[in-house]
Amino acid sequence: MDENLTIEPIKHTNFNEFLFLVDKLAEYEKLTPPDDKAKIRLKKDGLSKNPKYEAYLGKKDDRYIGYVIFFMNYSSFLAKPVLYIEDIFVLNEHRKKGLGQKLFNFIVSLAKERDCGRIEWHVLDWNQLGIKFYEKNNAKHLSNWLYYRLTNDQFDNFV
Amino acid sequence: MDENLTIEPIKHTNFNEFLFLVDKLAEYEKLTPPDDKAKIRLKKDGLSKNPKYEAYLGKKDDRYIGYVIFFMNYSSFLAKPVLYIEDIFVLNEHRKKGLGQKLFNFIVSLAKERDCGRIEWHVLDWNQLGIKFYEKNNAKHLSNWLYYRLTNDQFDNFV
Repeated sequence: MDENLTIEPIKHTNFNEFLFLVDKLAEYEKLTPPDDKAKIRLKKDGLSKNPKYEAYLGKKDDRYIGYVIFFMNYSSFLAKPVLYIEDIFVLNEHRKKGLGQKLFNFIVSLAKERDCGRIEWHVLDWNQLGIKFYEKNNAKHLSNWLYYRLTNDQFDNFV
Repeated sequence: MDENLTIEPIKHTNFNEFLFLVDKLAEYEKLTPPDDKAKIRLKKDGLSKNPKYEAYLGKKDDRYIGYVIFFMNYSSFLAKPVLYIEDIFVLNEHRKKGLGQKLFNFIVSLAKERDCGRIEWHVLDWNQLGIKFYEKNNAKHLSNWLYYRLTNDQFDNFV
């Protein structure tokens, strides 16, 4: 493992670099990146006293080249917290240098510290690089659960 | 909608009824229910000052017949909270009376209040009753996301 790889929490002084990386992940996933208003919310929600998410940046030498966002879920049947990974990302040109693994190991160590029953996440079905990475780490694909969503433009259809 | 259906938060005085319903959902989903130690954690985690999950019970007249557990996730690209439904359940013999819909509508109203960008959940692929219910509510099945998990017995394989 490259000794020049370090991990640090998001803070005011690295937040612009964090936003840059979030944009890069959206680009990679072909999803809509946060617009300017969303970026302001992202900062408020991540750096407030009771943050709505936790995020860490991965650094190689002096450059921020990856990040992870996660939060704590909960399993009712285990009655234990579940660490849910929202994003884990390393810049294309910096892959295969061990940072993804380092970020993943860091997540596992946090989950252990917090006595989590599980770590869970989703990966897009065409993201072969991601899938290979998770399979290599012996993660289990839960193919018997269907993932559903209702978006906020639909909320007004309900009483 | 049946006017005798009411919704109330979990509390010390209804917690045993809540635990009974959690067991019933585990039985329905053919999953392992919480053991005695887990039930003690469930109470501590749900009724503490900073609860690890939120839960509400559905009542018909004087009987507790359903419940919902959820927590707040977050979408980095929307920069908005996401309400994640962990469990939503109505006892078999009390289905088709509108309580499931009432609980779901309640969840939507909370998500609206909290300015959530989405509501998300998972359903087991053989649970046709559940799937039909979500489809009727125009929820979208996100078939392009694969769901992955690492369990705590695997944590020690990581440094």
